[in-house]
Amino acid sequence: MTDSAPAESAPKRSVFYLSDRTGITSETLGATLLTQFDEDSFKQSTLPFVNTVEKARSAVEYINHTARQSGLKPIVFSTTIDEDIRKILRDAEALFMDLFDRFVPAMEDELAVKATNRVGRAHGIPDQQVYDTRIDAMNFALKFDDGMSYDGYEKAQVILIAPSRCGKTPACVYMAMQHGIFAANYPLTEEDLESTQLPKQLRPFKEKLYGLSIDPERLHNIRSERRRGSSYAALPQVTFELRAAESLYKRHKIPFTTTTNMSIEEIATMIMQEKGMRRRSF
Amino acid sequence: MTDSAPAESAPKRSVFYLSDRTGITSETLGATLLTQFDEDSFKQSTLPFVNTVEKARSAVEYINHTARQSGLKPIVFSTTIDEDIRKILRDAEALFMDLFDRFVPAMEDELAVKATNRVGRAHGIPDQQVYDTRIDAMNFALKFDDGMSYDGYEKAQVILIAPSRCGKTPACVYMAMQHGIFAANYPLTEEDLESTQLPKQLRPFKEKLYGLSIDPERLHNIRSERRRGSSYAALPQVTFELRAAESLYKRHKIPFTTTTNMSIEEIATMIMQEKGMRRRSF
Repeated sequence: MTDSAPAESAPKRSVFYLSDRTGITSETLGATLLTQFDEDSFKQSTLPFVNTVEKARSAVEYINHTARQSGLKPIVFSTTIDEDIRKILRDAEALFMDLFDRFVPAMEDELAVKATNRVGRAHGIPDQQVYDTRIDAMNFALKFDDGMSYDGYEKAQVILIAPSRCGKTPACVYMAMQHGIFAANYPLTEEDLESTQLPKQLRPFKEKLYGLSIDPERLHNIRSERRRGSSYAALPQVTFELRAAESLYKRHKIPFTTTTNMSIEEIATMIMQEKGMRRRSF
Repeated sequence: MTDSAPAESAPKRSVFYLSDRTGITSETLGATLLTQFDEDSFKQSTLPFVNTVEKARSAVEYINHTARQSGLKPIVFSTTIDEDIRKILRDAEALFMDLFDRFVPAMEDELAVKATNRVGRAHGIPDQQVYDTRIDAMNFALKFDDGMSYDGYEKAQVILIAPSRCGKTPACVYMAMQHGIFAANYPLTEEDLESTQLPKQLRPFKEKLYGLSIDPERLHNIRSERRRGSSYAALPQVTFELRAAESLYKRHKIPFTTTTNMSIEEIATMIMQEKGMRRRSF
């Protein structure tokens, strides 16, 4: 707090993601909003499962403690529903950003009904069917990891094809976990890439195929992490594989995307959009 | 629209999750808000990658089309940042719920700075390091699937232990993908469960251990899906394993949770909270 204090020791403003459940909604909400400000000037923490009046009181104590320590008013993103708990939270010495306060009144007006104040999804009836779908979809995705299986393509909603290490498995696992999608994958081998034909295991499922490609330099780096100096990782080899893969996609009119600068979420979203797949949110 | 129309044909109100990126934030935000109303009365769709004026115009056309068809004003949850695009979107015949409009002004006041109107995270500098961390963490988690490896426990931030099919792998994969956490797992075998000692592979890593348990009926059902009528799935067998596992956790003071009615997110959150692990959001 003195003029001589070096810039790097400037106190950061605390941001709390507070929830009666996991905190995922308030983290998502808050993190998106913080992108609009200088993200490095915040210290973020999540306080999940604040679902009793006692826990709310100790959360407030903790928030106030950091406020006094840093001399900066914390920001609290809250998705807590219970009104008794919120009343306590609102008294924190913080900028209190409440998801429900800010959106529910407009929705009530439009829908001409009152919100129910029900605690969020996972606290209602336990949905074992949802859990089972996600686990089944995830086990399905993992079955294809590293080309261990070509079985079950009939059951797949989408089959990702690409040379090794272009991001097939992460995209499949993500779609399984977040959207319950049954996504298979098929690694294009050198033999596949030397042919103008589709690999025969894939021919009956052409409508389900989606290709991935990536920048050769990037694939070279990824493969080098695994096997440095191998011919598998060599730049000419990956360049050949990627060119051949893209020709194959084009020749057989298989939609594809280049994943170089994309996050796992963006790759998955691209695939689901292209394939017109229903996104379920859990 | 006539009195004689059966209830099941009542038109549903459309809800659109609209974004210049993946739509994940607006889905999360909107889905949480809809839990406060009758969720069955909405038809939800996501319109991702609305990142040009042209795409915004066709989104609005589509939204207006559904409005006319159903006779019900749609609800649009938007996390789009570009002001030219938002101007177009605001003209849709819809209740327009904008994340930034509703939160940013209060934040600007408190922080005494203007928001930057930067497009969300993934559109900035491509963060290959983040991608690599997630992939490395995911590959690490998958290595332990089905007890294929006991290697690498030194590198693990947490080691989940439990009898087979209690949810270790999904929790590990989730923590890897969503938070970049290196989570290993160890399946407790019958031999392990007959001993009062910790399995010897685990002894050097006691501080990293976290146990899972589950309701015996539920585990019986899960295992029966895999191998119906097997002794592996039999109720007395799973009851024995779970009791023995819980005794082991208690004897060695290993924190544990019973996952029966929990979502994957809740299990992961519980573990990270208990172990005081930093949650990174991607």
